[in-house]
Order: sequence, then C-alpha cells, then structure tokens
Amino acid sequence: MKVIGKMGPSQKNQNNEQNSPLEFKTLLSKIANDTKIAEGAPAIEDILRCIYRNQPISTKRISQYTKLPLPIISKVRTILERNRILKRDKKGAIYSEEGLKLIEKNLKFKMPYDLKCPTCNGRSIILDDYFGAILKKHKIHSKNRPTVNTSIDQSYATPETATHRAAFMADRGDLEGKRILFVGDDDLTSIPTALSGLCEEVVVMDIDDRLLNLIKNISDKENLNIKTIKHDFRNSIKEEYKNSFDVVFTDPPYTIEGLKLFLARGVEALGKEGALYLAFSHKPINEYLELQKILLNTGFVIYELIPGFNKYEGSEIIGNTTFLARLIGRNLNFNEKIDLNKLYTGEVKPVIRHYKCMNCGELHKIDGKSVRIENLVCKCGGAKFKMIKREKI
Amino acid sequence: MKVIGKMGPSQKNQNNEQNSPLEFKTLLSKIANDTKIAEGAPAIEDILRCIYRNQPISTKRISQYTKLPLPIISKVRTILERNRILKRDKKGAIYSEEGLKLIEKNLKFKMPYDLKCPTCNGRSIILDDYFGAILKKHKIHSKNRPTVNTSIDQSYATPETATHRAAFMADRGDLEGKRILFVGDDDLTSIPTALSGLCEEVVVMDIDDRLLNLIKNISDKENLNIKTIKHDFRNSIKEEYKNSFDVVFTDPPYTIEGLKLFLARGVEALGKEGALYLAFSHKPINEYLELQKILLNTGFVIYELIPGFNKYEGSEIIGNTTFLARLIGRNLNFNEKIDLNKLYTGEVKPVIRHYKCMNCGELHKIDGKSVRIENLVCKCGGAKFKMIKREKI
Repeated sequence: MKVIGKMGPSQKNQNNEQNSPLEFKTLLSKIANDTKIAEGAPAIEDILRCIYRNQPISTKRISQYTKLPLPIISKVRTILERNRILKRDKKGAIYSEEGLKLIEKNLKFKMPYDLKCPTCNGRSIILDDYFGAILKKHKIHSKNRPTVNTSIDQSYATPETATHRAAFMADRGDLEGKRILFVGDDDLTSIPTALSGLCEEVVVMDIDDRLLNLIKNISDKENLNIKTIKHDFRNSIKEEYKNSFDVVFTDPPYTIEGLKLFLARGVEALGKEGALYLAFSHKPINEYLELQKILLNTGFVIYELIPGFNKYEGSEIIGNTTFLARLIGRNLNFNEKIDLNKLYTGEVKPVIRHYKCMNCGELHKIDGKSVRIENLVCKCGGAKFKMIKREKI
Repeated sequence: MKVIGKMGPSQKNQNNEQNSPLEFKTLLSKIANDTKIAEGAPAIEDILRCIYRNQPISTKRISQYTKLPLPIISKVRTILERNRILKRDKKGAIYSEEGLKLIEKNLKFKMPYDLKCPTCNGRSIILDDYFGAILKKHKIHSKNRPTVNTSIDQSYATPETATHRAAFMADRGDLEGKRILFVGDDDLTSIPTALSGLCEEVVVMDIDDRLLNLIKNISDKENLNIKTIKHDFRNSIKEEYKNSFDVVFTDPPYTIEGLKLFLARGVEALGKEGALYLAFSHKPINEYLELQKILLNTGFVIYELIPGFNKYEGSEIIGNTTFLARLIGRNLNFNEKIDLNKLYTGEVKPVIRHYKCMNCGELHKIDGKSVRIENLVCKCGGAKFKMIKREKI
C-alpha cells in the first residue's frame, strides 16, 4: 500500500480548508485511480455522501449502501483517514471536524439524510399478511440449509429476500397459473414461491444434491409438489424441459461467463418468449455495460431494475446486496460464446484469502481450491474465522 | 371493427365453462393479434389480471396500471364484453359471473389484490417535510402553465411527479453540488429541483418562449437563479455548454428519433461521463428493445428503471404514465443517425382525431397540423371537447 503513504498527511492536507474545489476533486480522482475504482471519482463521492448521511457507519454498511466492494471501501476509508477527513468511531466511520467543513465546502453536501421509502426499503412492494406468514414458515425451513460451497459461488439470500422475490413475482403477475423454473436455487427462493400456492408448476434445477434434497424434503412436508432435477448447466437442459416455462428465476455466478451460461439455460426453458428474473451483483461500470448488452442481444428488454433488492448472509465482499431485474423477452435467441473455464469468481479472479482463527488467533491461507473456508477447522478446534487480507494471485 | 364481430358470442363462447385452457389461450392470442398488441397474449392476460385485482376499474386506470395505450384497452374491453367475459359497471369494467369462473379456471388467477408499497406507490422514495413544502409551493407555480403544444408532444407531468423527480435525484446524490441541465422542461421539473437549494447550477434549455418566461419569472420571484436558454435541439448546444454538466434530465418526445435527438444534446452537455435521467413512455416491446440498445450503445448503463414513476395531466393516450430511468455513463459517445422528420408522434404516426364539443355536440376533425386541439374553439363558443375517434392517415 505504497500509494497510501504518498497520499498521507502533508502540510497542504493538514491545512485542508485552503484546498480549492478543483484540488479536492483532483484528490478524489487520485483516490479512485489508486484504488482502481472503475467508476472513478464519482464513486469516492458516493462513499463520502453515504458517510455524510449515515455517520457513524460501518464499512459493511457503506458497501451495502454504495454497492461497492468491501475491500475497496476499506482502502478508501484508510486513505481518507490518513488525509484527516475521516475518523474512526466505535460504530464506524465519522467525519473529522475539518473533514466535514472540507466536504461541505468542496462537494456542497447539504442533505444529511436520504429519502428512501421506509415502508418497502426501496423494493417497491411489501409483504402482506399472507406473504408474512410464508416468511415465518420459510425462516424455519432455511435453518436447515447446508454450508455454502464457495467454489461454485454459492451464497445464501436471506429468507426475507427469498420471500420478497416471491411476492414481487406474484405482484407482477408472473406466478398465478405460471410454470416457473429456477435455474439454480441455492437461495431456496422456490420454497416461498411454491408456498404462495399461485403457480401451476415449480421446477428447480441445481448441481448440488444437498440443496435438491433439502428442497425435496420441505416440499414433501409442506405438500408443495416442487420438482427437483439434478443438472449441470454446462450442458443443455433435457428436451422435455425446453420451451416449457413461462418464467425463469436465476441468481447465477457473478461472472460474465456465469451469467451467459445460466441465461442460455433460461432461454432454453422459455423458448421464444417469457419473463426472466435476474439477481446479479452491482458490477463495475464497464462490466455492467457488457452484461446489459448481453441481455438485450438475447432479446430481453429490461422492464424493471431495482438496485439492492437482494440481501445475502455472508458474501460481504460484494456488499451483501445485488440488484433484481425483471426482463421480458420476445423472439429470444441466445447466441453468445461461453468460456466454460471462467464461470466462477475463483476462476476469473483467483485470490488467496488470509483468515484468523477467532479462537486462538492462528493464521490460515485459503486459495478456495484445495480447502474452502466453509470446511476449515483450526488446529485448536475453532471453526470461526475472520478474513484479514486478500491477495491476488 | 369487422374482426370483433367474428370474435363475438357464438354457441361455444356462450358455453364458456367448457373451454379448455388451450382454447382460452388461443382466444387471448387471437385478441392480441386482432388488436395488434406487440406483447401478444401476455398483454391481454395483464389486462384481465388488472381488472381481477381492481374491479370495477375504468379504461383509463387499466391503461395506467398495465402501461398499455388507452385505445387498445378500449378495443380489448369491447371484445371481452362481446365474449361475455366482462360487463360494464357504472365505475368501469367488472367480470361477469361466467367470466370470473372462466379466468379462474383457465388463467388460475387467485390473487385479487396487489402488493405495491402503499407508502411510496412503487417509486422507492418518499417526500419528507422539506420536499413536501417544495411540492406545496410548486403546485401554486404550476397553475400558471401555458396550454400544451401537442404538435411538439408537450404534455405536463403533475406537480407531484416533478417534485418526486427532484427528490429522487436528491436521494441518489445527483443534486448536491452538481450542475444540472434540463434538455427541455415543459414539466417544470427545474422548479422543485432549484427549490431544493442543493444544486450548484440549474440550466433549462427549451424551444418554447412561454415556458422559458414562466420559469424565469418563478426563478426571479423565488430567487432560484435558474438560467433559461432558448434552444432548438435540432442544433448542437453552444460550445460554452458542452462538457459542462454533471447531470441531465430529459423527457423527450416519445419517438425513437426524438429520444436520439434529446440524448445527443444530453451527451454534449455531459461530455464523457455523468448521470442522465430519462422519462419515456412504455413502448411496445420491439421499440423498447431498440430504445434500450441506443442507450447502451451511447455508453449508458441502466442503473435503475422504475415503471410508472411519472404521471401526467392529460395524455391519456399513453396511459398517463411513463418510466423513469437513471442512466450512468462513462466514455459516452453518441453516434446514431437522426431522422429529423420523425421527431414527433404526429410525424411518425399521423392521425385524425374526431372531437365532440361538450357544449353543443358539434363534431370537429383535427389533424394536429393546421389547427391543434388546444386552440380549438367551437362555433357555439365552447372550448371543451371529448375525443370520440382516432383514424390513422
């Protein structure tokens, strides 16, 4: 982190109030450059605004709010602290007195709160009593989930998110009398969907037997009639399922190739037309553009896009939230090439993570291949770890 | 309307309950075909679902809810009435007893309500006391608006919509310390935006002197310092305004060429990067796809898209609502060809409208060129008219 040193307190920075707006914007651009944020200075401004509206606020919540990755927030915070703009409070980041004056002068911040709807949290729909009861049931079922398999980018949406997804699809008229396929379902969204009693048919395809068994068991217990099928999406779906669904829900691995693969299977299931719900992480802008071009080229129109709709347990790395898009297709035609060697995050951006045992303090290195974090047990017997560093390979 | 006759009650249709789901879906496809709805049978289903959840409901409200044009809703209603699925109530469309059985059997409708957030109406943000006071002021100012000029597709967003737009941009961090340009502002969105006191600079370009004068007057009275510039967007904006804004708001004519023209000016104003807020009508799916491809090809990513965000006074023809999209661009580059002869709806889809004087009943034909509806006065002196027919030229 040599760069940070360079950005550290100099006489000029200690004398912050004399900075001109232009100099301040140059500082933001420099921070964006040094931390390699694709969105540039505006992303640094977003972080500063988020803290202005919510201080004190934790790195994790800044990440959720700004949709920027946790390690980036962490680096930016450190640089801003060295520049004496931010301080550390027990509850998280707050402005120093000079920092506050500086940003109010240079960025003209004036609105120390936001206007997000407190009732729906910006999701645009609410759970009524009927879906509220479904959430209650689903919370109990969710307790039986197996540990995540991070090597295939599993990470679990909260039971609230799964139930909001079902309610959202119900509101948009995509459940009543419809046949819906889940292209992968580590989030168990199929459970509240089937519990709604609205669908004609609910089918789940997934590669993970543990999840399929769990869904089957819940389905039997609740008499939901969910059909579970073990399937590796690197292969086409069986002929009998092609062109057989009205709606597809998918939350693919958050790589471009992962998106393409799951999208290809979704299009097979829909045939020429239908609705596809896509949960996907907020990507850096160039990748986001590529992603949306793929959707449009396949014949999908983005009818609705809600940032931060989905919340996850764990996966702090992507700020715990992803967007939900409702896509409508006519004349669908998937014809992108897919690189099967770059499906999962670990394949596209291999990293070594350093974990500290919460019990004895022992350090562990994990490359996500031989040993995965969910299977790690420390020599002391401890099984809780805190990630302290990520290194690109 | 020969087609409707063919679809009228036959022995089979009178005996509705014996229809199979397949036959029923064929009926829906036929209605979609006959009414030329690009979205096909799913759009007819949307109309049926909307009535199921909200009956009795007026044609206008069905159009707002489904985002389908009013004349199409009207035709579909007539066909469904002839098929004895719907009836007419004083308050609008309701199901006949057989109709209700029929759709519950064939479309499996079960949810006679929806889950839209009652607090924000699906807009995701609310007006707090501060913006509530702005709305109150803006409502008074809005009373001085000139009559719309339909030949250039003017139609006024409600004061509520204009204020929600300002609040939305404020929440997303696109007002504080920012320079914002309105590429056209017949909706007077610049007023609540400037009243927020958050922006660094508010500039309005428009071709209509009446609007510019009104905005200037309000700005002077309220000390808002809005800069108004008369400009015909068929020409580039002046050099001094190029690459000079952080944010652009536009609600262009609802044609593809109109979108391109206003987008081109927006990109000139932003330079290589910035946020662009686009209000645009819910288009038939093929046109919608074309529209989104233009946005992406220009370098904009669709960060957020909220259907039905904007509501208008008049313009029932498009169901009174449009979507609001927040677009973020980096490396912006507009290079589409623009056909300047197809900017306005009247140029792309010329129609003759038949109006009836509400005072004496006299009929008037309007082609939107020589005389426009807003200037029409009847021989009897009456100035209120009801549209009774639209004819394509």
